[in-house]
Amino acid sequence: MAYLRNCWYQAGWSSEIAGSGHLVRTIADVPVLMFRKTDGSLAALQDRCPHRFAPLSAGAVEGNIVRCGYHGLAFAGDGKCAANPHGPITSAMTVRSFPVVERHQAIWLWFGDADLADREKIPDLSFIDETPEAARIFISMPTAANYQLLSDNVLDLSHTDYLHPTTLGGVSVGAKRKAYSDGEAVVGEWLTLDCVPPPMYRSVVPSGNADVWMECRWNAPGVNVIGTSATPAGVARTPIDEMYTLHNMVPETATTSHYFVCSTRRLMTDDASFSASVKQALANTFSQEDKPMLEKQQQRMGTDDLWSLNPILLATDSAAVRARRKLDDLISAEQALT
Amino acid sequence: MAYLRNCWYQAGWSSEIAGSGHLVRTIADVPVLMFRKTDGSLAALQDRCPHRFAPLSAGAVEGNIVRCGYHGLAFAGDGKCAANPHGPITSAMTVRSFPVVERHQAIWLWFGDADLADREKIPDLSFIDETPEAARIFISMPTAANYQLLSDNVLDLSHTDYLHPTTLGGVSVGAKRKAYSDGEAVVGEWLTLDCVPPPMYRSVVPSGNADVWMECRWNAPGVNVIGTSATPAGVARTPIDEMYTLHNMVPETATTSHYFVCSTRRLMTDDASFSASVKQALANTFSQEDKPMLEKQQQRMGTDDLWSLNPILLATDSAAVRARRKLDDLISAEQALT
Amino acid sequence: MAYLRNCWYQAGWSSEIAGSGHLVRTIADVPVLMFRKTDGSLAALQDRCPHRFAPLSAGAVEGNIVRCGYHGLAFAGDGKCAANPHGPITSAMTVRSFPVVERHQAIWLWFGDADLADREKIPDLSFIDETPEAARIFISMPTAANYQLLSDNVLDLSHTDYLHPTTLGGVSVGAKRKAYSDGEAVVGEWLTLDCVPPPMYRSVVPSGNADVWMECRWNAPGVNVIGTSATPAGVARTPIDEMYTLHNMVPETATTSHYFVCSTRRLMTDDASFSASVKQALANTFSQEDKPMLEKQQQRMGTDDLWSLNPILLATDSAAVRARRKLDDLISAEQALT
Repeated sequence: MAYLRNCWYQAGWSSEIAGSGHLVRTIADVPVLMFRKTDGSLAALQDRCPHRFAPLSAGAVEGNIVRCGYHGLAFAGDGKCAANPHGPITSAMTVRSFPVVERHQAIWLWFGDADLADREKIPDLSFIDETPEAARIFISMPTAANYQLLSDNVLDLSHTDYLHPTTLGGVSVGAKRKAYSDGEAVVGEWLTLDCVPPPMYRSVVPSGNADVWMECRWNAPGVNVIGTSATPAGVARTPIDEMYTLHNMVPETATTSHYFVCSTRRLMTDDASFSASVKQALANTFSQEDKPMLEKQQQRMGTDDLWSLNPILLATDSAAVRARRKLDDLISAEQALT
Repeated sequence: MAYLRNCWYQAGWSSEIAGSGHLVRTIADVPVLMFRKTDGSLAALQDRCPHRFAPLSAGAVEGNIVRCGYHGLAFAGDGKCAANPHGPITSAMTVRSFPVVERHQAIWLWFGDADLADREKIPDLSFIDETPEAARIFISMPTAANYQLLSDNVLDLSHTDYLHPTTLGGVSVGAKRKAYSDGEAVVGEWLTLDCVPPPMYRSVVPSGNADVWMECRWNAPGVNVIGTSATPAGVARTPIDEMYTLHNMVPETATTSHYFVCSTRRLMTDDASFSASVKQALANTFSQEDKPMLEKQQQRMGTDDLWSLNPILLATDSAAVRARRKLDDLISAEQALT
Repeated sequence: MAYLRNCWYQAGWSSEIAGSGHLVRTIADVPVLMFRKTDGSLAALQDRCPHRFAPLSAGAVEGNIVRCGYHGLAFAGDGKCAANPHGPITSAMTVRSFPVVERHQAIWLWFGDADLADREKIPDLSFIDETPEAARIFISMPTAANYQLLSDNVLDLSHTDYLHPTTLGGVSVGAKRKAYSDGEAVVGEWLTLDCVPPPMYRSVVPSGNADVWMECRWNAPGVNVIGTSATPAGVARTPIDEMYTLHNMVPETATTSHYFVCSTRRLMTDDASFSASVKQALANTFSQEDKPMLEKQQQRMGTDDLWSLNPILLATDSAAVRARRKLDDLISAEQALT
């Protein structure tokens, strides 16, 4: 399938490549080997030797180079051949390399025109950096569904009432909804005043009714940030009440995705055991409720495109449809240029 | 592949949907959710929400409706939207529904023109209803082979000599064979006089030679009824000697089938323990002898059509070939109309 | 994919069909049933009955015929129908048969024009026959990679330094290399004088430096014979020093292969326990080092042809590239004739 090329795709978390370790992940159908150079920065190479197409990851990272385990060609982080034990090095001996940066605790790859790979184009996720480490929760969940279905899921938070009734749901039906574009972002907002808050919000409003705010902010290709707050009914929320969670939906293939989550909060930020219990609750919710539904949805759709199936549209789809159309436009514009 | 549309396909047994239960089966490439309404009648819906294509079966049946577990749309048995928690109901909010009837202890679905869905078009299987419950044996066997291969199998009973030598076989070679059309049915008959009966017939002719009669009556698309009798040699059979067994071959996909069996008899009809032993014997024979052969046959054929492989034809193929040609004609005629 | 047709493909080892046994293997996409006739010679039939396409191997070999287990048709080793229990035998009742010979302890099949099936076209592997039985080591290894990748592997022995550093490697980099055509064969040679020999060669040169010779001789479609020797530095090798090992790479499908090995030696030829330890060492090396790399290579290549991926070529590829081009030419020439 066609992917947006000139954008950053998250390939993992910085913590996944410690010391001289390496990481292999397929992003948008491309297997990529990422490794940390001796200066601590990352390199990202197509995980396929240009000689006989063995995976470079089946060889070894040696300082700033990776050596193919089949015939010993070595490549530097820029993809140029660093050693050919069998003869001279020529300019053809190059493996594809990708711009790679670390930002907001995550690793980001760029598959398009390298000259355009500006790290400022990564959506602002500074809420992650501003959160003390003990209050950050990282989850990675491989999901056998297209990444756009995953974004649809979080852009239509009405699903929480039906898919997560015992934890996150109960207030989306009847909420005041807004869906709008904010620059390059698409935002869906859900505000419910004076309601019985969902069970998982009882930790912040232990008794009585609450005002519950939920927002999902999407940036292409699938970077979603969900903001939520619950305050006692009638009490306006302040920044400390707002919890932000990244839901980054990254295509692995047309029908499989990497679902990267980073949950943050501004309260009880030094309580690691609270973090552990929240992590468990979120991981259970995602893996036992979202993931099975998304994978069944993909199975029922097969390889058909959403629009080709002529879906009925509900009022709650506004944000998701805006995001899909925006992404379609971006991809079309990019293809028109080439 | 092309299926006959204007005909009834068995989707299961009535007993499979008790009380408020439901059943999901893929028939002719269509996943169908069947559930029992409060009046006891059945509804059958495509098992795919028209909103975001989640399986409706991942939600819940609530009385006469089924509610999608993803965003809460509810649908009545006729496919019309019964509840949209997020806004008004429109006529587009409809899921495909299918005529569904119960007859002869089985559930039948109609995928073609609903106006033509006359329950009288179900082949007459009243032998099932006439059989006391203790003497009815139901077997369902998923088989990884095309449903026409399954019909071929029972329409050419010469296979019993080779595939079932220790139970049902031994008399087909040398039998007087007939193959003919009887209205819409195709019949293959095998009559062997004064023979040593197959081992499984020894319960009705314990000693001495027997006259063995076997007949397979096919109706489109794959409804086969096998009638058999064994009587002492020279003794004409009477209706009480005839045992009838449904072998209904239903396409799940092009290369997988549902094989539904209902065995009946007119002797020892209140002997449930005899039924249990017959059920075990039949289930063993089908699952250990027919099913492996049919699945290997499918593997060797791959996705090729039988005729494209230019099979050699034997005298024993007459009924099966008649049935295949009849089905081909029916499908062609149906396609010519659309 | 296109295979060379007018050539012999190894289908197994003679010892795999003892007495009245049989063997089923898919070679070049064709499932073949091989069985031993009463005179001890072999027959090879397409493993698919021409009647209803059941595998003949699901039936039974009975002396010189095989009887289909579905409807009882029997076929002789030449493919002609030997028995039809249901009527007369016609000339159409024929299953495809293949020329099959045993030579050099192996079974060979011919898929092309039977008139051209001259057993003298099997590459000379008489080193196998000349080796006492106790010194012959047979290994069969199914590998999920295209057979040409397997030939590439042995035609470029520089891989031993990287893939087998603790056993066979260490001397290929810096070796004097030659690659040339020798009649219909392609040969790659690697000669390293006055070197520390690879660990597995220490059994023949226990101390001091060695002269190590390695050669891979390829014949179409994938018959490779590797010759090796290690002698004390400066001591010329004699025939007794040379060990020859067959590495026969046989296509099963486009992406899977049968890898048949027969290792021989001229020293310690009556030492069966030494053979056992060598067999274990070779089997470990192939299954834990070559096979995983070849299968990963295939995964990275997907269904793409090697040339379409535009591989970079190294000096060490000369023999493998010559062999590939020769095979391409042979296939093209064959196709031009039909």
